[in-house]
Amino acid sequence: MAKKQQNAITPMRVEDYPEWYQQVIKAADLAEVSPVRGCMVIKPWGYSIWENMQGVLDGMFKETGHVNAYFPLFIPMSYLEREAEHVEGFAKECAVVTHHRLEPDPEGGLRPAGELEEPLIVRPTSETIIGETYSKWVQSYRDLPILINQWANVVRWELRTRLFLRTAEFLWQEGHTVHATEAEAVEETEAILDLYGRFAEEYMAMPVVKGEKTRDERFPGAVNTYSIEAMMQDHKALQAGTSHFLGQNFSKACKINFLNQEGQEVFAWTTSWGVSTRLIGGLIMTHSDDDGLVLPPRLAPRHVVIIPIFRGDDERSEVLGYCEKLKAEVEAREYDDGKVRVELDDRDIRGGEKVWQHIKKGVPIRLEVGPRDIASDSVFMGRRDFSPKDKSGVSREEFVTRVPEILGEIQKSLYDKALKFREDRTRTIDNLDEFREFFSSEAEGGFAGGFALSHFADDGGGEALLKELKVTPRCIPVDEAGNLGECIFTGKPGSRLTVFAKAY
Amino acid sequence: MAKKQQNAITPMRVEDYPEWYQQVIKAADLAEVSPVRGCMVIKPWGYSIWENMQGVLDGMFKETGHVNAYFPLFIPMSYLEREAEHVEGFAKECAVVTHHRLEPDPEGGLRPAGELEEPLIVRPTSETIIGETYSKWVQSYRDLPILINQWANVVRWELRTRLFLRTAEFLWQEGHTVHATEAEAVEETEAILDLYGRFAEEYMAMPVVKGEKTRDERFPGAVNTYSIEAMMQDHKALQAGTSHFLGQNFSKACKINFLNQEGQEVFAWTTSWGVSTRLIGGLIMTHSDDDGLVLPPRLAPRHVVIIPIFRGDDERSEVLGYCEKLKAEVEAREYDDGKVRVELDDRDIRGGEKVWQHIKKGVPIRLEVGPRDIASDSVFMGRRDFSPKDKSGVSREEFVTRVPEILGEIQKSLYDKALKFREDRTRTIDNLDEFREFFSSEAEGGFAGGFALSHFADDGGGEALLKELKVTPRCIPVDEAGNLGECIFTGKPGSRLTVFAKAY
Repeated sequence: MAKKQQNAITPMRVEDYPEWYQQVIKAADLAEVSPVRGCMVIKPWGYSIWENMQGVLDGMFKETGHVNAYFPLFIPMSYLEREAEHVEGFAKECAVVTHHRLEPDPEGGLRPAGELEEPLIVRPTSETIIGETYSKWVQSYRDLPILINQWANVVRWELRTRLFLRTAEFLWQEGHTVHATEAEAVEETEAILDLYGRFAEEYMAMPVVKGEKTRDERFPGAVNTYSIEAMMQDHKALQAGTSHFLGQNFSKACKINFLNQEGQEVFAWTTSWGVSTRLIGGLIMTHSDDDGLVLPPRLAPRHVVIIPIFRGDDERSEVLGYCEKLKAEVEAREYDDGKVRVELDDRDIRGGEKVWQHIKKGVPIRLEVGPRDIASDSVFMGRRDFSPKDKSGVSREEFVTRVPEILGEIQKSLYDKALKFREDRTRTIDNLDEFREFFSSEAEGGFAGGFALSHFADDGGGEALLKELKVTPRCIPVDEAGNLGECIFTGKPGSRLTVFAKAY
Repeated sequence: MAKKQQNAITPMRVEDYPEWYQQVIKAADLAEVSPVRGCMVIKPWGYSIWENMQGVLDGMFKETGHVNAYFPLFIPMSYLEREAEHVEGFAKECAVVTHHRLEPDPEGGLRPAGELEEPLIVRPTSETIIGETYSKWVQSYRDLPILINQWANVVRWELRTRLFLRTAEFLWQEGHTVHATEAEAVEETEAILDLYGRFAEEYMAMPVVKGEKTRDERFPGAVNTYSIEAMMQDHKALQAGTSHFLGQNFSKACKINFLNQEGQEVFAWTTSWGVSTRLIGGLIMTHSDDDGLVLPPRLAPRHVVIIPIFRGDDERSEVLGYCEKLKAEVEAREYDDGKVRVELDDRDIRGGEKVWQHIKKGVPIRLEVGPRDIASDSVFMGRRDFSPKDKSGVSREEFVTRVPEILGEIQKSLYDKALKFREDRTRTIDNLDEFREFFSSEAEGGFAGGFALSHFADDGGGEALLKELKVTPRCIPVDEAGNLGECIFTGKPGSRLTVFAKAY
């Protein structure tokens, strides 16, 4: 029982990391498995994190000239078939609509009826249905570029699901752009990769490696895929966002052609890119600890929770009055282009229970306020980036003045901690023994490996070892583009530096 | 040809109203029919109107204590069957998922494979899947109320579709609340009806009648349904939002029960309510004219468009410089809790063509700025609520000062005009001859009828006449709750005043 008093989450990360992840989600009331196989229910606390992510990303997309639109949920089966790699990639796991009504079943209950002439696929991604639409919109170079984003739900029939990380249905945004030239489309792909990187680092406080995917890891139908890769606390990599240069593959499959300035009929160049509710999984596994969720202030639904501590009705009205005034003062303060978001938790349950609930929910700053604090016109503050026991008194006036600064400190401390964590577990490795050893022996904390930076030719080689170690090439970092050397597996010179890791 | 020069939309409303509606949508670039039967593509201009609607409604929901969450897209067939009226209402038009992958068809192409044990329905509405989830969340009166909203797509397999008004897939919000007592649930139902009414009138500038639905028009499974009903320019009623008191029907079907304060196990009381992209159809048909879309400023993606008028490069740089400065000045002005939204349309096409494009898109204020205007430091202003020819010079300074006020005037003038339109076509009728005459003879403008206010017993009677006239009871206005009289069809005393109309 002693352990339970020390940590709010059982088991601890080192004991059973996957189970710890589930328990953090449960304790923070973020989401739950739904009665529909593979689908999740995103609960209000989890959904408000997603709303905050959406708000920031949507603003970033619009600032860079993108607009939103909405395309159909369903894709005719024949559309998927137009791009050979694409259908190969998605046909094995998709929800297929075959009927359009239900009728009484003679054996009781209902049964599907009204068979469709052509089955419809619930979109696993929308390149083909959007491409079909674009083919009608694009006639001349004057119609380009098209810079459209869609916020939507998508379905991929995953057999092994995990909340936020891999679910049959998930929420995402998918950008689909069309350009007159290859150079413009490549530029867009890279600009979005940068945008995703900025969002991950500046808002999620999650350091990422931006890079190009290796040959076998590309999006089905893409010429080139870029991704942001983050290190989780079990040392595994999480692919947190992807940006695809589709070349002319989909413009040819969907007939997106146009009359260029020289009067020639040519095919357009397209891109697509997306991030999803998987980001919430990344957020959880980057910052959370054995007491539960830890939220970076810029994405936290609430920045400050005020917990009144009192006995009896006399104290109650005095303490609540003080807390309400404090709430108004703190809410008037500005943080990150908005106001500081404050909750006064006046529910009729024990103060200690409340404190732990807010710790588990990841609220950045907790204030406990009782009669003694009021007497000295101060508050008792706990920061979620400190130990739960590390609380200190601070004058009310000073807190109100400093609250935006403290939130900024928390945001920075979370990023710095995560960056150090990653750097400590990243190693440049150019020989196979060290590579094997790195991914085989458990470091402190009970997890093996991390990010290995090794030169890699990406044209065959290493398959058996990678399979044995359960390691995959994650990406070829764009910041190391000039760093060439001999392939760790084949010795081929001129190979690019590549990140290897176990991955989600 | 003279007619075409006078009006931007062909045909005019009086000539062919349904076709006029389609042409307004096309001319404003709001949406189009998709290649997937019954589904629409919402284009950027249309989607940004929806985003503005979402922003306002979401704020109103949150102000009244609601939070957002997300539930699965799919509903197991057996869930739908739990509530007899509910399944009856939705089974005939729904998309049924029966397989979870595609495999090569020996005859070529692909075919569905991996049959599901139980078919899944793409949600036509989410009472049953959300109810199933709530049944696990609700154990004690302390867990209540639950006040949750979801922004989502839904699918109802409509055979005859019209953009925004009736499509197989549409976007909406659906609120689902659970309460400990009947009184609280009724209060919620009514509060949301009020909220929808405020949104329609104050933001959409669309006057509505708030009322209770008659017996046959209730939501399948509801004890009572309330709606807001608006009059379109063809005198028909559009049901623009509904709020349902579900009694204990769904709590019994989904087993949402709890231990009340007296320690008894009882069933909860639930509500559900929604508005959809159909609102955009209502917006179009309330304000648009024979020159295209007219947007109320509070929901317009852009408030002001500046159209530079120049010849040659010399004039060009002078005019554009002036326009950019003007844009910055206008954008610094506040309107409706935000900034004034301005576009400087510097595309390389003729000024006259631009002007008509923005008229057709419904932008509230157009400014034309050429060298002569600059010489007098003024702008040439057109308001979308005035005739396209009715333009006037106004000093730059005065315009910048007055722009928020002018936007307010436009918002009000649109509402006032729509209200007068409805009032002129609303008649209290308590005899059948007049009722028949009202709905049979065309008034000026070429459309018959409008809203007839007649006492109605709502327990049988009038079916043949109503069917003949293609008229239905729309709602029993809450503002006329005490207005009782003899039923126009049966003479039954104590009947409530009811709105009758042709309807969408």
